[in-house]
Amino acid sequence: MKIAFQGEKGSYSEEAVIKRFGKEAEPVPKRTISSVFSAVEIGETDVGVVPIENSIEGSVTETYDLLLTTSLKVIGEIYLKIVHCLIGLPGSDIRMIKRVYSHPQAISQCKGYIASMGFDYISIYDTAGAVKLLKESGDMTSAAIASERAAEIYGMQILARGIEDYGRNYTRFLIIGKNSPPLAERNKTTIIFTLTHVPGSLYHALGAFALRGINLTKIESRPTRSRPWQYNFYLDFEGSIEEEHVKDALAELSTKTLFLKVLGSYPMELIEYE
Amino acid sequence: MKIAFQGEKGSYSEEAVIKRFGKEAEPVPKRTISSVFSAVEIGETDVGVVPIENSIEGSVTETYDLLLTTSLKVIGEIYLKIVHCLIGLPGSDIRMIKRVYSHPQAISQCKGYIASMGFDYISIYDTAGAVKLLKESGDMTSAAIASERAAEIYGMQILARGIEDYGRNYTRFLIIGKNSPPLAERNKTTIIFTLTHVPGSLYHALGAFALRGINLTKIESRPTRSRPWQYNFYLDFEGSIEEEHVKDALAELSTKTLFLKVLGSYPMELIEYE
Repeated sequence: MKIAFQGEKGSYSEEAVIKRFGKEAEPVPKRTISSVFSAVEIGETDVGVVPIENSIEGSVTETYDLLLTTSLKVIGEIYLKIVHCLIGLPGSDIRMIKRVYSHPQAISQCKGYIASMGFDYISIYDTAGAVKLLKESGDMTSAAIASERAAEIYGMQILARGIEDYGRNYTRFLIIGKNSPPLAERNKTTIIFTLTHVPGSLYHALGAFALRGINLTKIESRPTRSRPWQYNFYLDFEGSIEEEHVKDALAELSTKTLFLKVLGSYPMELIEYE
Repeated sequence: MKIAFQGEKGSYSEEAVIKRFGKEAEPVPKRTISSVFSAVEIGETDVGVVPIENSIEGSVTETYDLLLTTSLKVIGEIYLKIVHCLIGLPGSDIRMIKRVYSHPQAISQCKGYIASMGFDYISIYDTAGAVKLLKESGDMTSAAIASERAAEIYGMQILARGIEDYGRNYTRFLIIGKNSPPLAERNKTTIIFTLTHVPGSLYHALGAFALRGINLTKIESRPTRSRPWQYNFYLDFEGSIEEEHVKDALAELSTKTLFLKVLGSYPMELIEYE
């Protein structure tokens, strides 16, 4: 099974792929989130794994925008605990480090640590890509911020572990594919809709779910780009489109929306936070 | 009157300052949005102007996060139409250009144009800062993306005008200050709140507004950072805290929230879109 992910070998996205699909999987690295979508659309890979949200930094807006226009379905979700390491060349010492390379989100998640150490920082398109770049540069005064696994893969040295400013740092990934997945006992559904701009329109739209006791797990708004200050709302809720009360809720919602797209129902990942 | 804004002289934020405050104003450039908040907090400037949302790219999450912890009030809003220009050194020619420098949001808004011209692109902290950098470099094969005004200020040449991919491109700015402003006939209010995670909690919270016919103009969610997947909701709505039905709505809302902060009521800017 071929699975597209964004980043280099050793990125957190690849870690999410391995966590879910194990050793049978063949992860296929892609430079951008957009090219993960394309790889699945053209059948180069079976599915794709894309980051959608981080518990500290918030939504990955690029993924939200790509979900609007894709013909793919959301077929699953993966939660990954993020533990950032400061990674240097073999033989380097933390006291020699003057600057760090990483993805902007990782830099942002370690902002306090970076400031306390007096490091400069430079943004790179991927955490593992930063480790690779550092290795190629041979620069003993620079370090990368990435996962423990990235350090192993590139034969580099961990100078510090768990350097993120907030401990409860999780990223949620979506699995995207062409075919609806088998459902589980507990499922989630992801939809997108647009409303007319009248008082109470969002309230009445959410009523379709609230009045049936359907639990919303996430709401996100993104500009439609066609009219200023008109939004597409992205909703995740518990339940699947095979359940009657969800079908009813969507039928009611569709009478109140200008646009409605069901991205899919998929098994909910049950996690316990440390 | 001293007014802090983010970016260099000639940035869109400075244009917003001049649009609202005119010639009497003394705009004070700051490198980051965070330092605009600090300048007002310590009294270095009277007010600050910060971008909150763009009609194409969506919310400026850094500003949302800073609003959570500030003791300042939101005292006004400014809408600015964004028209991006391709700017080169005097005597340069569009056929010589190989790469462009600009703020990541401006690059993103001109992605189609940049791709069609085959340019490389490099991110800079500010649009006007990119023009300044280009001028200093003296590089005839590079261009910057910024406003017409930035080109004038730095004595540079406009190579193309209106290069953004979507025409209806507006940025909304907030004015932040220490004292509540005089209100107008039509006003807006901005609040932040956190809910318990039970089915229908957002629906019931929004009911406080919908059942009183109060028009919501924006809803945004940001992670609380203290508990994974718990969100702070940011709400803009029409009306001021001096109106009885708004007071009632906030009183009802406060019985349903874990946390509620009123950032302020301020005159609504009435705009007509082209």
